[in-house]
Amino acid sequence: MTIRIKAINPNTTEAMTDNIERVGDEHTSDDTEFVAVSPDSGPISIESYYDDYLAVPGVLEEIRRDADEFDAFVNACWGDPGIDACREVTDAPVVGIAESSMYVANMLGATFSVATIIPRARDFIERRVETTGLESQCASVRCTDLTVVETEETRDAAVDALLEASERAIEEDGAEVICLGCAGMGGLDGELEEALPVPVIDSVAAAAVLAEGVVRLGKTTSDVLTYGSPEPKAIAGYPDIFRIGSTEPSADE
Amino acid sequence: MTIRIKAINPNTTEAMTDNIERVGDEHTSDDTEFVAVSPDSGPISIESYYDDYLAVPGVLEEIRRDADEFDAFVNACWGDPGIDACREVTDAPVVGIAESSMYVANMLGATFSVATIIPRARDFIERRVETTGLESQCASVRCTDLTVVETEETRDAAVDALLEASERAIEEDGAEVICLGCAGMGGLDGELEEALPVPVIDSVAAAAVLAEGVVRLGKTTSDVLTYGSPEPKAIAGYPDIFRIGSTEPSADE
Amino acid sequence: MTIRIKAINPNTTEAMTDNIERVGDEHTSDDTEFVAVSPDSGPISIESYYDDYLAVPGVLEEIRRDADEFDAFVNACWGDPGIDACREVTDAPVVGIAESSMYVANMLGATFSVATIIPRARDFIERRVETTGLESQCASVRCTDLTVVETEETRDAAVDALLEASERAIEEDGAEVICLGCAGMGGLDGELEEALPVPVIDSVAAAAVLAEGVVRLGKTTSDVLTYGSPEPKAIAGYPDIFRIGSTEPSADE
Amino acid sequence: MTIRIKAINPNTTEAMTDNIERVGDEHTSDDTEFVAVSPDSGPISIESYYDDYLAVPGVLEEIRRDADEFDAFVNACWGDPGIDACREVTDAPVVGIAESSMYVANMLGATFSVATIIPRARDFIERRVETTGLESQCASVRCTDLTVVETEETRDAAVDALLEASERAIEEDGAEVICLGCAGMGGLDGELEEALPVPVIDSVAAAAVLAEGVVRLGKTTSDVLTYGSPEPKAIAGYPDIFRIGSTEPSADE
Amino acid sequence: MTIRIKAINPNTTEAMTDNIERVGDEHTSDDTEFVAVSPDSGPISIESYYDDYLAVPGVLEEIRRDADEFDAFVNACWGDPGIDACREVTDAPVVGIAESSMYVANMLGATFSVATIIPRARDFIERRVETTGLESQCASVRCTDLTVVETEETRDAAVDALLEASERAIEEDGAEVICLGCAGMGGLDGELEEALPVPVIDSVAAAAVLAEGVVRLGKTTSDVLTYGSPEPKAIAGYPDIFRIGSTEPSADE
Amino acid sequence: MTIRIKAINPNTTEAMTDNIERVGDEHTSDDTEFVAVSPDSGPISIESYYDDYLAVPGVLEEIRRDADEFDAFVNACWGDPGIDACREVTDAPVVGIAESSMYVANMLGATFSVATIIPRARDFIERRVETTGLESQCASVRCTDLTVVETEETRDAAVDALLEASERAIEEDGAEVICLGCAGMGGLDGELEEALPVPVIDSVAAAAVLAEGVVRLGKTTSDVLTYGSPEPKAIAGYPDIFRIGSTEPSADE
Repeated sequence: MTIRIKAINPNTTEAMTDNIERVGDEHTSDDTEFVAVSPDSGPISIESYYDDYLAVPGVLEEIRRDADEFDAFVNACWGDPGIDACREVTDAPVVGIAESSMYVANMLGATFSVATIIPRARDFIERRVETTGLESQCASVRCTDLTVVETEETRDAAVDALLEASERAIEEDGAEVICLGCAGMGGLDGELEEALPVPVIDSVAAAAVLAEGVVRLGKTTSDVLTYGSPEPKAIAGYPDIFRIGSTEPSADE
Repeated sequence: MTIRIKAINPNTTEAMTDNIERVGDEHTSDDTEFVAVSPDSGPISIESYYDDYLAVPGVLEEIRRDADEFDAFVNACWGDPGIDACREVTDAPVVGIAESSMYVANMLGATFSVATIIPRARDFIERRVETTGLESQCASVRCTDLTVVETEETRDAAVDALLEASERAIEEDGAEVICLGCAGMGGLDGELEEALPVPVIDSVAAAAVLAEGVVRLGKTTSDVLTYGSPEPKAIAGYPDIFRIGSTEPSADE
Repeated sequence: MTIRIKAINPNTTEAMTDNIERVGDEHTSDDTEFVAVSPDSGPISIESYYDDYLAVPGVLEEIRRDADEFDAFVNACWGDPGIDACREVTDAPVVGIAESSMYVANMLGATFSVATIIPRARDFIERRVETTGLESQCASVRCTDLTVVETEETRDAAVDALLEASERAIEEDGAEVICLGCAGMGGLDGELEEALPVPVIDSVAAAAVLAEGVVRLGKTTSDVLTYGSPEPKAIAGYPDIFRIGSTEPSADE
Repeated sequence: MTIRIKAINPNTTEAMTDNIERVGDEHTSDDTEFVAVSPDSGPISIESYYDDYLAVPGVLEEIRRDADEFDAFVNACWGDPGIDACREVTDAPVVGIAESSMYVANMLGATFSVATIIPRARDFIERRVETTGLESQCASVRCTDLTVVETEETRDAAVDALLEASERAIEEDGAEVICLGCAGMGGLDGELEEALPVPVIDSVAAAAVLAEGVVRLGKTTSDVLTYGSPEPKAIAGYPDIFRIGSTEPSADE
Repeated sequence: MTIRIKAINPNTTEAMTDNIERVGDEHTSDDTEFVAVSPDSGPISIESYYDDYLAVPGVLEEIRRDADEFDAFVNACWGDPGIDACREVTDAPVVGIAESSMYVANMLGATFSVATIIPRARDFIERRVETTGLESQCASVRCTDLTVVETEETRDAAVDALLEASERAIEEDGAEVICLGCAGMGGLDGELEEALPVPVIDSVAAAAVLAEGVVRLGKTTSDVLTYGSPEPKAIAGYPDIFRIGSTEPSADE
Repeated sequence: MTIRIKAINPNTTEAMTDNIERVGDEHTSDDTEFVAVSPDSGPISIESYYDDYLAVPGVLEEIRRDADEFDAFVNACWGDPGIDACREVTDAPVVGIAESSMYVANMLGATFSVATIIPRARDFIERRVETTGLESQCASVRCTDLTVVETEETRDAAVDALLEASERAIEEDGAEVICLGCAGMGGLDGELEEALPVPVIDSVAAAAVLAEGVVRLGKTTSDVLTYGSPEPKAIAGYPDIFRIGSTEPSADE
């Protein structure tokens, strides 16, 4: 059984996309195909709600482009931006790296913390903890001074900052597992675990194995209500690929 | 003191935009200017997360276009789509019709319910109740069979459906106030109050008076952390108006 | 349209009552009449539950005295003492300064803190955050060493204490907006904002503009259940003004 | 060891006060003295927030009158009106019938419901469940058409109404224990248990045995912060017994 | 009326069992018989979930052995291990020391903290706070370096450690009452109260008086659903006393 | 890479154990070994807290017996009995079928319900939803009249009962996914999905793929605090395999 998984890095930083593909491929079965892409449109990183909202249309486009060719999709930004909308536009399971890392963490320790990027993203990160439903298990969200791009480009500085944040989470907040709260941190878990007394979850890897697992179950997204296909309707200013159903052409055609 | 308020109807249905302007103008002071617009891009109505995410860039564009010319902005869709992002791109207060109607309702009764559109929007509506923080005060979200466009175009049917939903909310859920959960329902509160034993909140009107009130306080949005201006960065595929700060041109230029 | 608002300072400190009237008048429209009074009975300040319960009968008396002559009432103590009872004895909207300041704060920042009086009032203050429903949005309640009377009489010391409390709320608790948690702090927001990086909400001013706004909506308090008029019954030991309906005289007549 | 307990019926209906004394005396040890009184002032029953606030000063007066002569006080209205203030004015434990019945119920079943008076009291009753902290254990509050006075005066009708409410709580809400939510229902538990498959808690009796128990522990109320003695201050319009400490005479002397 | 209460110390440390009996006897009425036992099987102390699960069968055996000879049972380990199962195997009330201490604390202060043993037990302790339902009232769980056995055997060191934990709970967490979070701490409350400004609850004593109180109410555990007698069925590997009803012999006979 | 997973059916019904092995094997990769066992001791089914506590020692024994020979363990009873203790006695990940099914459900729909056995198990089931942390996502727990053994032995009746429970969950509670709340229901998901409009999660299968996924991540259980190895100590009445560390022999040797 060959499983095909497409991960979408919601930002346009290709180095991060490459890293996501490498991490996902490394942790999935040999006969699973794991590819990662970036949308054509959107910001180079997601650090604000503004970035979030400008990134999501591109993510949706990437799912619609290949909705029938993959068994599952991975939303590869901690925050799982637009994941509810993603689930509306495909029957294939859509797995977020934020939720996945929290599920794994919740099975390995009594509490977990999220070590993540710059403080302004805290509200965005905490909201994803809440919409996943696991705020009672989350000891803390610990921010650093890292931008998203720095997590990818300055690996040593990223490790140092994440170590400090994780140590405070463990000592002051009682964290028993650390979730790495950015796709750019993919692959840093091993180095961090050498210096920390707790498991460190690579969120991209977590999503990759969970996506594979859900495919093995043979399940698809529920389309009975919330995640049913969006109602066909006129949509101005977007390319044809965004048109749902056989409605009149969208406004910009 | 002339107060200038710009309401943005996140969908592209002009009849609804006109109604929003009429309702907002009617309830604000005589010397307040209240205008309503629709974005150039986006769906004709917001009924799914997909619609939500395709609508928000246009809303952000409308704020950025006039960020310095208005004293406050109103986000005129129940769900307050992208309101966190809106608050990042202007110092002027941004007031959502969902939150406003709940605040007013919370001052007039011990509990409130939201009477709103088709069932698939329930999760979207409930999430806004939760992100506002008032789920403990909300007796229920009662959906109808109305699409957004029908709330505007078939007023008699809308009143009938909302009456039935409201009566069930009052009798079965203990609601003491009803919030009308769609901007298209603007102006229906009077007719509903004639038939119901409880206050009915026109959410657009509620946002209009609260926006006016916050302007009278002379306050602006906090830019210390979450709602600070987004970091300047390259953003592909969006017009120049979306560029923050004096960074390099966005990718599609 | 002339709007008439009566604010009731639940304590008997006249200087505070004067301040409330000045602040409320300053922020409302020119053609709005905003008056403030103190009850004849009750403590000079509310700092304990004991004070709270001895103050409320006087507040209720002030509402009943003028129930038909004002368009709205403001309960002007952070804690909104007896506000549920106030809502039972008049159809006019009753707006509390605590709830109002939280609503405004919740529209201006991702979280807010309350900077307030002596530590023993913390439970009283926190309970009002909870009964309003907004504890999930409240980063902290930060107490000072200020008594209620000191907030009014020693303005420089009050500013110093509130600055320190606010700074700790911002730095340690992540507050993005500060609510001033006592009516005696009315008018201090400007001076505090000069020294702090976040908006500071004058709770009296917030209640004034929200009361005005609710009146513009033309809404009255829900009388369907919780806030319906109290059942007529014999009440011993209270003057005749407390008698509800045309029942037998209250016991002390 | 003789234990002396004073129960205060916050309303002025003497038949209810007599019933409280009888029930409390019946369940406490032989050498415990259990007396019940009504205040001189206040309504004949508590069914609204208005009644609540007019009743509490009289309750506080009854505690202050005998603060040194009893080992514990019982607040004998379901809602425990003003109990926080009661705890401020005496070191002796103050035990509420609402909280007591919930504690006992929580030890006898996995969930409990409260069967109580007219629907308008629901908010008042539910708030006491919440301030006690046990809302997660409470399956429901089931109201009847009974006024407080009817619970005392029309015992057969009261039993019928409570049976119906309890049956619905058991069958529809999953209640495993019933708390009788009014002091006037004291003594009805036996008759109800004959017809119901679950334990029925007489809330007055529950408070009586818990008050006795806390006295046996030799504990007094914490005065470190919230329940410390109220600050001495001028209080207008109340008799001298309300004056705290050796301050200047209260304003009406 | 002679009341007979059997306390079960879930661990096998006899010195602790003796202490439990002494404390329980001291606080109950003269004509109440209060005995304490340890099970034949199980660990010498409960500090992990592993200990918890190995201790509970012995506790259940002790209840079944004497189910008809006592009026109430006390589960004498903070955590109330297996208390739901205990309630299934007897009609007599089963009272836990954890829940009892929290109920008493909740009547004496606005918040309480638990001062307890080694940090690894935190999750176990906090879960009992949550299953009781009182997490909103609990300011903190403060762990020490004390093992369970040390609380009993090194009383001076125990007092020192508990003093430090309690002081931090009071100063940093706002605790107004301290619950002693281990049966081995029975009898230390007096010495701690001499050095602390708040009431300190001996949890064993609290359970003793509450058990006595519930017996005085004449109530038994609800058997309508959750706490009904377990279904008769084959149970392998346990002595005959564990067999419910007249089923076939359990597997190891 | 060969992954070895041992599932423990906490009850002693071998037909159910066989079913668990078949389901787990079917959904995992070809080169994964998935075996299922029952403990030597314990009840034939878990339907009460009593059953739960008598089953767990046997589960712990099965883990300790093979702690070094498997890469992961599955706790195969909905309720995940004793899973915290399981995590203390092995470094290998321990995955519960309850938590796994909820995680998968949470990725496929906006809400889920649990369709499960007899009503007396509701509290046990709901508590696992709560300790996992996902109660805000759980629309309802819907009980049937099925005993655990009947789910395995009378498959047609089980399907009928689960269909009815699921339909009510979907229509009345808004469930968008159904979790099958008993290991005995393994393999029924396909038949149920044919008749229902939503995904149905076979909880055993969900645990199997998640266990495999966590092994692929190379992670082990956190031993920093809660799930560290239990302290070595004397344990009476249990075989030697229960002895932790190189302490003195347990008491029954």
